[in-house]
Amino acid sequence: METTTVKEISILKNGHVTSPSGFYAGGVHCGLRRKKLDLGWIYSDTPASAAGVYTQNTFQAAPLLITKHTIEHSKQIQSIIVNSANANSFTGKQGYEDALLMQKLVANQLNIEQHHVAVASTGVIGERLPMDKVRNGIRQLSHTQVDAESFEKAILTTDTSTKHVAVQVEIDGKLVTIGGAAKGSGMIHPNMATMLSFITTDANVNQDSLQQALRKVTDQSYNQITVDGDSSTNDMVLVLANGRAENNELNESHPEWSVFMDAWNIVAIELAKMIARDGEGATKLIEVIVKGASTNQQASQIAKAVISSNLVKTAIYGNDANWGRIIGAIGYSGVPVEASKLSIAIGGIQVVNNGEPIDFDEKDCKQALNQETVNIVIDLQSGMDTATAWGCDLTYDYIRINASYRT
Amino acid sequence: METTTVKEISILKNGHVTSPSGFYAGGVHCGLRRKKLDLGWIYSDTPASAAGVYTQNTFQAAPLLITKHTIEHSKQIQSIIVNSANANSFTGKQGYEDALLMQKLVANQLNIEQHHVAVASTGVIGERLPMDKVRNGIRQLSHTQVDAESFEKAILTTDTSTKHVAVQVEIDGKLVTIGGAAKGSGMIHPNMATMLSFITTDANVNQDSLQQALRKVTDQSYNQITVDGDSSTNDMVLVLANGRAENNELNESHPEWSVFMDAWNIVAIELAKMIARDGEGATKLIEVIVKGASTNQQASQIAKAVISSNLVKTAIYGNDANWGRIIGAIGYSGVPVEASKLSIAIGGIQVVNNGEPIDFDEKDCKQALNQETVNIVIDLQSGMDTATAWGCDLTYDYIRINASYRT
Repeated sequence: METTTVKEISILKNGHVTSPSGFYAGGVHCGLRRKKLDLGWIYSDTPASAAGVYTQNTFQAAPLLITKHTIEHSKQIQSIIVNSANANSFTGKQGYEDALLMQKLVANQLNIEQHHVAVASTGVIGERLPMDKVRNGIRQLSHTQVDAESFEKAILTTDTSTKHVAVQVEIDGKLVTIGGAAKGSGMIHPNMATMLSFITTDANVNQDSLQQALRKVTDQSYNQITVDGDSSTNDMVLVLANGRAENNELNESHPEWSVFMDAWNIVAIELAKMIARDGEGATKLIEVIVKGASTNQQASQIAKAVISSNLVKTAIYGNDANWGRIIGAIGYSGVPVEASKLSIAIGGIQVVNNGEPIDFDEKDCKQALNQETVNIVIDLQSGMDTATAWGCDLTYDYIRINASYRT
Repeated sequence: METTTVKEISILKNGHVTSPSGFYAGGVHCGLRRKKLDLGWIYSDTPASAAGVYTQNTFQAAPLLITKHTIEHSKQIQSIIVNSANANSFTGKQGYEDALLMQKLVANQLNIEQHHVAVASTGVIGERLPMDKVRNGIRQLSHTQVDAESFEKAILTTDTSTKHVAVQVEIDGKLVTIGGAAKGSGMIHPNMATMLSFITTDANVNQDSLQQALRKVTDQSYNQITVDGDSSTNDMVLVLANGRAENNELNESHPEWSVFMDAWNIVAIELAKMIARDGEGATKLIEVIVKGASTNQQASQIAKAVISSNLVKTAIYGNDANWGRIIGAIGYSGVPVEASKLSIAIGGIQVVNNGEPIDFDEKDCKQALNQETVNIVIDLQSGMDTATAWGCDLTYDYIRINASYRT
């Protein structure tokens, strides 16, 4: 346990949830959306250790409740079924029956146990799922398909692009792969879990360790992003580990646990950033880094206040280094901050140093903000802790998309 | 104290901060803005009992700190000086000196005590006040001017209209008048106090009672509005009571205290609603009424979650009765709610009843939402408490205004 060797983690060029051994995926059009794919699935050729984190919203949607219950009891999942366009949320008892039926139909179609099927839905809240369409879609499921791209497309709502990544690392001399997919891109302000994200790995991982680690990973990735401050009723992150890499079972005392965690964190953070970058109407990814905090929790609280501010988001959209709005947000974050120690840089340009405004060239700053990724670095100079949060600018297109989403 | 007679409170047709006896006001252009008025003042011909509530933002601006300190010590105010365009916030020690100088210059100009002058600023954060311009402006102050409209104009930033109101009521057989003015219209998400609002009355009111009552009034009015979820560094509400109505001193045990409070509440709520309606880019006032809650605090928490939701705000802008977004916001408000008891009406049209979706005519609903004021009524059916919150829709113009505010 004392010999920590530096391990190389490689990011695959075109990584997917099907990159780890033994995972299959696909997506079909069943009629929930007009033309686009709307029903996707992941399948593992052997039941996989599973863990999940779920939205803290009071009104947890029916599919989420069923998936949570299923994983708590069976600890294993072999297939995940996901529909878009309809969240099956706030749909009462019938909505619960519908989600249960989805689970059963998938089990029958793939000839696996019903308690090895996870169900997820995303889309409009408050409308019943048209189960005839879903039933027809599930009839097209196959456990031999390797079409992760169709899966990634089928789970999207207002997203403009699919979100996927995979990394590889050696553990116990075995090649371990971790893949992931996610969807955004509105109602994104995760509180503990988040939107939908699915992570697959062929690593052999203890289920208890997997669940505990998922919470940690989530806190540093999905829970650090926001698009619009709205937390959905359907958010969940699921991880499936099918053990096909044949490494010794990973848990907190395995000598290479931290290597595995590092690799997993890369996957989760990359997906989280993709969600933020593709936030509804976004033109930019905003990355807020808070340094020099007394605690990680305080750093995170400030980072999230700044990334959530509509005024900061519109200023960045307008390439305006209006740092007073960052001050405003730090000030209402609830964290005590010493003004005289505060330093702020936007896009690499120092605007506040030890509490004093710095003269900066407005043109340079406009250029520094006119980038696809804009960093805001806030140094509190009061401790050693740090946190990063991701979000996006607030634009005309956010209004366009959301003033006409349902109709 | 047992004989509460119903008192008629009349709203004046064109009420201002100068409607109560002995109050004067004016506004000038001193060069902080290009052409518009930018320096305003209120003057009472006798020192008035004063009370204030202030932003909870960590970085309280210099003028706010001075005003707070002044009122805490002198308990009385005779003049309020307000500049727009520059918040004199996060301007360090020099900013504090500048605000102090403003206070002194006003005292000299009006020949009153320095500790009877309140100072307020609003505008861009982080820039020094050009004191030569402010000094020239203060030279134009007069204690005989009755030009409330110039005052109301001088305190505006991105507001599109002035905000003023006055009411009258009889107390101890004397006519008591309460007037008020306010400005919005961005960085509005008050946490205890709010933006700038000034209330004048000729009532004779005990200073302790005035301060305590101001907090209560604020909680039900200014603290119940939001425009963009951002709390400013400069928010404050001040009230001046100069006693010119010659009623017996009002305090909590005065038989007509509740009449005075009712009248005051009307002024505060009207001003708060004007701020919400004139929120940056707004086309509509949204009023969220939560009924049947177990506590007032819970009702308020839900009302504020719904009114703050970008997704609800854009849906109302688009005349889209997308009630799933209201469900989403109630669900993340942090208040436990029983889904099966929940009823929701939008613009008078029932969309959810006892937890069940109600079929409604989309056309009727579109029409009901296409109004200047849209009510959302949420009935929890779990208690007797109620709360109302006010806000506005989120539109293209909010983006336009805030992507180019400073430059």
